[in-house]
Amino acid sequence: MINTELAGNLEKVKAAQKILAVTTREDRDAYLSDVAEILRNRSTAVFEANRKDIARAEKEHLAKPLIKRLLFDKGKLDSVLAGIDQVISLPDPNNRILEARELDEGLILKRVSCPIGVIGMIFESRPDALIQIASLCIKSGNGIVLKGGSEAAETNRILASIFQEAAAARKGGRVPSEWIYLLETRDQVKEMLKLDAFIDLLIPRGSNSFVKYIMDNTNIPVLGHAEGICHSYIDADADIAKAVRITVDAKSQYPAVCNALETLLVNREIAQDFLPPLAEAMKKVGVELRGDAAVCSIIDCIPAEEADWRTEYLDLILSIKIVDSFDNAVNHIHTYGSGHTDSIITESPTQAELFMQTVDSADVMWNCSTRFSDGFRYGLGAEVGISTLKIHARGPVGLEGLMSYKWKLYGSGQIVADYTGSNPRKFTHKKILQEQVSGPQN
Amino acid sequence: MINTELAGNLEKVKAAQKILAVTTREDRDAYLSDVAEILRNRSTAVFEANRKDIARAEKEHLAKPLIKRLLFDKGKLDSVLAGIDQVISLPDPNNRILEARELDEGLILKRVSCPIGVIGMIFESRPDALIQIASLCIKSGNGIVLKGGSEAAETNRILASIFQEAAAARKGGRVPSEWIYLLETRDQVKEMLKLDAFIDLLIPRGSNSFVKYIMDNTNIPVLGHAEGICHSYIDADADIAKAVRITVDAKSQYPAVCNALETLLVNREIAQDFLPPLAEAMKKVGVELRGDAAVCSIIDCIPAEEADWRTEYLDLILSIKIVDSFDNAVNHIHTYGSGHTDSIITESPTQAELFMQTVDSADVMWNCSTRFSDGFRYGLGAEVGISTLKIHARGPVGLEGLMSYKWKLYGSGQIVADYTGSNPRKFTHKKILQEQVSGPQN
Repeated sequence: MINTELAGNLEKVKAAQKILAVTTREDRDAYLSDVAEILRNRSTAVFEANRKDIARAEKEHLAKPLIKRLLFDKGKLDSVLAGIDQVISLPDPNNRILEARELDEGLILKRVSCPIGVIGMIFESRPDALIQIASLCIKSGNGIVLKGGSEAAETNRILASIFQEAAAARKGGRVPSEWIYLLETRDQVKEMLKLDAFIDLLIPRGSNSFVKYIMDNTNIPVLGHAEGICHSYIDADADIAKAVRITVDAKSQYPAVCNALETLLVNREIAQDFLPPLAEAMKKVGVELRGDAAVCSIIDCIPAEEADWRTEYLDLILSIKIVDSFDNAVNHIHTYGSGHTDSIITESPTQAELFMQTVDSADVMWNCSTRFSDGFRYGLGAEVGISTLKIHARGPVGLEGLMSYKWKLYGSGQIVADYTGSNPRKFTHKKILQEQVSGPQN
Repeated sequence: MINTELAGNLEKVKAAQKILAVTTREDRDAYLSDVAEILRNRSTAVFEANRKDIARAEKEHLAKPLIKRLLFDKGKLDSVLAGIDQVISLPDPNNRILEARELDEGLILKRVSCPIGVIGMIFESRPDALIQIASLCIKSGNGIVLKGGSEAAETNRILASIFQEAAAARKGGRVPSEWIYLLETRDQVKEMLKLDAFIDLLIPRGSNSFVKYIMDNTNIPVLGHAEGICHSYIDADADIAKAVRITVDAKSQYPAVCNALETLLVNREIAQDFLPPLAEAMKKVGVELRGDAAVCSIIDCIPAEEADWRTEYLDLILSIKIVDSFDNAVNHIHTYGSGHTDSIITESPTQAELFMQTVDSADVMWNCSTRFSDGFRYGLGAEVGISTLKIHARGPVGLEGLMSYKWKLYGSGQIVADYTGSNPRKFTHKKILQEQVSGPQN
């Protein structure tokens, strides 16, 4: 059953977003400046709320790293303020003319970027994520329904209230305070998943099982990824020193994340030469190796089981398999991979291009670490998330992942009947160049 | 329960599509030429199969218009052959470099178009639709699972077999014959809806209730629209003659389609002047008018009920409401509309732009008939469907609606560790112009 109170509140967010869609860049940027100012002015109260969350977390014996991520202090405040400034400086993603075409004299078609609508964001304990996500949504003209980690309840509540206050306070401002809504319970999240009339896109950030749960329990499109089972294929033509160096980085530079390497596929021709130096390098950084029988016959390692090929370790463990051919490597990736990030290490540009063309993953790489698949490293300006969707947005997603488009047709009295029957008018279908259609008004 | 036989067959389509993804434009265009040739050579058998379908349809007393749509004769053959030629002449939608960026010296990122994967298409009785849809899928490198109308079973079977035969016959050809699979029963469709591991996007064409059924019963993304409740808002500043002419076209030029006008919203200030000539013009073309109390006090019409605002008549019926303001019109559209196509008739460019900015529909129009929202009229080259999705593709969808993209990162030994810690390397993040990245190999 749908909680009518929550549905009513989300309906208000939907209505507020329709107002937001008509605001200008100046409206939305001025609003973000106001948010920054109120944040600065009320920092004492924010720190106070955060201390309550931390005290409760300590009382409940939360793990130290979790408590560390929960902290919102002067340093975090400075960094979120810098983040808001950066979002203000981004170009307006709205009202961009993506294409324009004359259909006939005085009948001009434009495809124009616009917000998707209302975004449902579910994120983990870091309360600074709330500010980052809300800033990207207001910048792009989307309404937002948020659910943060319950450990950060007090901090999230005051941060969300600052966003509402900034909307209410601005004289003559056009950002309605209902544009943002904070959920506080898991039951509310469960209900939100059914409210596809009010939520247009879900962006969950959290554990794989949580993201999978969201994907399996809603009709709302979900932008995210459940798993990152990333592979590297060491081709027969690989440069061994380069391959070892890249593999060590991909596995051990930061193993807890989705773009870390989990399975290494090694061409049989190069295995004898490649595996011993690899094993030595991996030993130095403390990586446990699990290999198939052929691997275990060359280096000292734990025998891998079928389950290893399906496992995202997120830890200093690497599974290794020897393959007879390029095709076997690709088949393994298509069978066991998660379509996230997969790479080939080879000195052959032809093999590299064939790999990148064949492997059906969001990110495909040649002679570099899988750890590069990331919005910041890709230079996307702002990262909204990483997606293994194949429609809409794939791989690291920037602000444009929050955008839709609409078709605007500017006529001067045209009717379809004139273009049908005997002696019909003909469409001209002339492409109009970007330079000729700079503003929405012309 | 999942039928393992069907799952096994769809898994083969998925595998075949991975091969298709590596074919060149030349492979796929040559294959389409082969299909055309076999179609020509086997036309007698195709017409024969079609005669069986028609004989059965007549025996089962199908409606005349349905039988007419079922017909596949010499005329239809010529038009599908011309259609195949047109698809061959379209530019390759694959391997288009959508953006490119230098991340650092020797570390080049490209975002490149690629097929989505396997498309599930469910279409109505016209068997020529099978050829059109399959041609667009092969052109774009997507696999396809098809279900046509059961009335056309014999014709669809032979047409699908010609596509398979062309793949099998081509010497050295690289299109695997498993790339296309024809479903023959409704139970198979029901099962397909659960097989999200093998189908990446569903495109249903059929009645609203059927499309809605599909949308409600699958986790697979659905490109389509359930309803087209299209509005025109006659602003106080409308030119009356223009408004009457456009409204008559939008309602009566072809009322059975989704972009036909269903509800007219009239600003109170212009109602006395506009409604009488409108009523007269609508009477001439046989349109029944249903108005609210205010409308009924000005012209002779049937009183509208609440349900009328929610109804897609697809018939010569128009509901009319008088609104007090622009905002009331927009609110009505957001309350009762289906986000398909909505228009404003006004001589004020400011009101027109505000309307197109505010109304959250796939197609928004000024001073022209809603009937223009159509892939052919928009000049999209080929129409895959019309979508009321807000992600991926919205409004009339051309070939690019069948495309996804992947990120290709071309490195030369880079590791992430070099870009972190003290004294990290800096990313250059230099945009590379289109002209500099013409081919996939450079």
